[in-house]
Amino acid sequence: MGGRTVAFTDPPSVIGSACIVGEKEGAGPLGKSFDRIVRDPFLGEKSWEKAESRLVEQTLRLALDKAEMTPSDVEYVFAGDLLSQCIGSTFGLRDSGIPVFGLFGACSTMAESLSLAAAMIDGGFAGCTAAVTSSHFCSAERQFRFPLEYGGQRTSTSQWTVTGAGAAILSARGEGPYVTHFTAGKIVDAGVKDANNMGAAMAPAAYDTLTAHFEDTHLQPSDYDLIVTGDLGSVGAGILVDLFQQDGVQLGPCYNDCGLMIFSEEQDVHAGGSGCGCSAAVLCGYLLNGMRSGRWHRILFAGTGALLSTVSSQQGESIPCVCCAAAISDAR
Amino acid sequence: MGGRTVAFTDPPSVIGSACIVGEKEGAGPLGKSFDRIVRDPFLGEKSWEKAESRLVEQTLRLALDKAEMTPSDVEYVFAGDLLSQCIGSTFGLRDSGIPVFGLFGACSTMAESLSLAAAMIDGGFAGCTAAVTSSHFCSAERQFRFPLEYGGQRTSTSQWTVTGAGAAILSARGEGPYVTHFTAGKIVDAGVKDANNMGAAMAPAAYDTLTAHFEDTHLQPSDYDLIVTGDLGSVGAGILVDLFQQDGVQLGPCYNDCGLMIFSEEQDVHAGGSGCGCSAAVLCGYLLNGMRSGRWHRILFAGTGALLSTVSSQQGESIPCVCCAAAISDAR
Repeated sequence: MGGRTVAFTDPPSVIGSACIVGEKEGAGPLGKSFDRIVRDPFLGEKSWEKAESRLVEQTLRLALDKAEMTPSDVEYVFAGDLLSQCIGSTFGLRDSGIPVFGLFGACSTMAESLSLAAAMIDGGFAGCTAAVTSSHFCSAERQFRFPLEYGGQRTSTSQWTVTGAGAAILSARGEGPYVTHFTAGKIVDAGVKDANNMGAAMAPAAYDTLTAHFEDTHLQPSDYDLIVTGDLGSVGAGILVDLFQQDGVQLGPCYNDCGLMIFSEEQDVHAGGSGCGCSAAVLCGYLLNGMRSGRWHRILFAGTGALLSTVSSQQGESIPCVCCAAAISDAR
Repeated sequence: MGGRTVAFTDPPSVIGSACIVGEKEGAGPLGKSFDRIVRDPFLGEKSWEKAESRLVEQTLRLALDKAEMTPSDVEYVFAGDLLSQCIGSTFGLRDSGIPVFGLFGACSTMAESLSLAAAMIDGGFAGCTAAVTSSHFCSAERQFRFPLEYGGQRTSTSQWTVTGAGAAILSARGEGPYVTHFTAGKIVDAGVKDANNMGAAMAPAAYDTLTAHFEDTHLQPSDYDLIVTGDLGSVGAGILVDLFQQDGVQLGPCYNDCGLMIFSEEQDVHAGGSGCGCSAAVLCGYLLNGMRSGRWHRILFAGTGALLSTVSSQQGESIPCVCCAAAISDAR
């Protein structure tokens, strides 16, 4: 359809999805939408990284159960996470026996994996694929910021990495919800260097991809029941609304952000939730459930990722960001 | 075509490819096949990571020039590298303006990116895509092993990370070589824990994917002029040949490994070359040039990746591996 948006000819169906989160996420406003809330942040493992892999493994298995599929039914899985060399995913999928395409899109990974998993089906290359991603507060904190024991003060713009995973099973057949479009993201670097303000860094990437999506599809925000970014938090979401307002476009009451939805203000997470697992768990529970129940008919799910590393930050670099958007509808 | 192999209906053409390497690689047996040999390992930058990003940027630009295309002609680029959070790719592509899908497949990334870039075209989603990856000896050493200044002794099974990048431009139109098939890889973990013997860790993954490829396609090794892994090195390549021999299958004289091709024995790299840039630079120069000149008609290019991180190794984990294979032919 031109630009960087693909409209699928025969939109693949999400035939099952699952999300597993930690205790803090379970205590938030979306608590009832999660399939499982784990009380032990280690999930019985000896490290947080192994715990994150266990999250991936359990979430994918649960999604398969809900789709009434087995791992051998899945032709390709698209997966990635925040950890260096994506060990959350690779160790989590190690025993699955499913052919894998590893991804890195930071917190945009759920949208990226969903888009590619859908493309493999609509392209005629597979009948069943999966998309899965994860994050873990403890593995992310010690990798990107400080040891938890250090008890560092968090800035007001910082976001809280969600402990959680989401998995979606896609099929050429099924009764929806359907992935109808994706819009791929260019790398956008607005010059933000503060790794504790990733919302501000990511908002211009979200603006870029969403603008491209509306241009390519000739749709406007009001054509969607819900436009949801994941995860800009309060700072980034405000900037995104402002950027559209400058164009005379109102994102309006149908706009929300997974990072704002998953925690309440009382939970003291500052600017909101983040991490690959945030938008993944919100999509694979609350959002897809809401589509199945008829609450929403058309959703635009825009995953946003900050493509920094500790090394790039230490070298004084700004934060390149990306946003990948997938449109999901209850009708083909 | 069943299994985990896709046979493209209308195989996309590689309309341009380029490779840029460091001085040591340029002094090796394939020296004349590289487009550019950089004498300065920093490429004028202040860090090795920034130098690697510069390699990505320059190599993609050169491939576009050779294909007589501009960045705006490329609808999607598939890219990844070995650095944590793939900063080689994300910073290297930051100014390109090309919509990007970030990948992580460790040293299998060139095969993974080529497969997905081809799938996007054959699926009808794009007319022109790109695949690019990189590695840098200095950025990889300090990330995965020791500071260079430490002067650590390398074991006999260790491989030398190539400083180099490769980029391929694919199009729905063109005169070849054509990407005709891909076979995706399952994660295979043979229990090897020695991060200095990645050839032994990766060989079972290569065996798994190549076996699946031959089963799915009903082809046999002798149907290819060249079967090339990247990069098992001498230890892993020997194991792969043995594994096939146990099945009564001779990989034969048409089998080689990019890690063995890029350096000579006199260059003292122990078990051979490695790194995403190794198979990328060998494919995008020597191999594709050889197909264009008629030396080879059908190549099976099998990228192998060791999906470990320093954290997983420190936690006593074994090394999960993956192999993604792409078949390339001079005829559709």
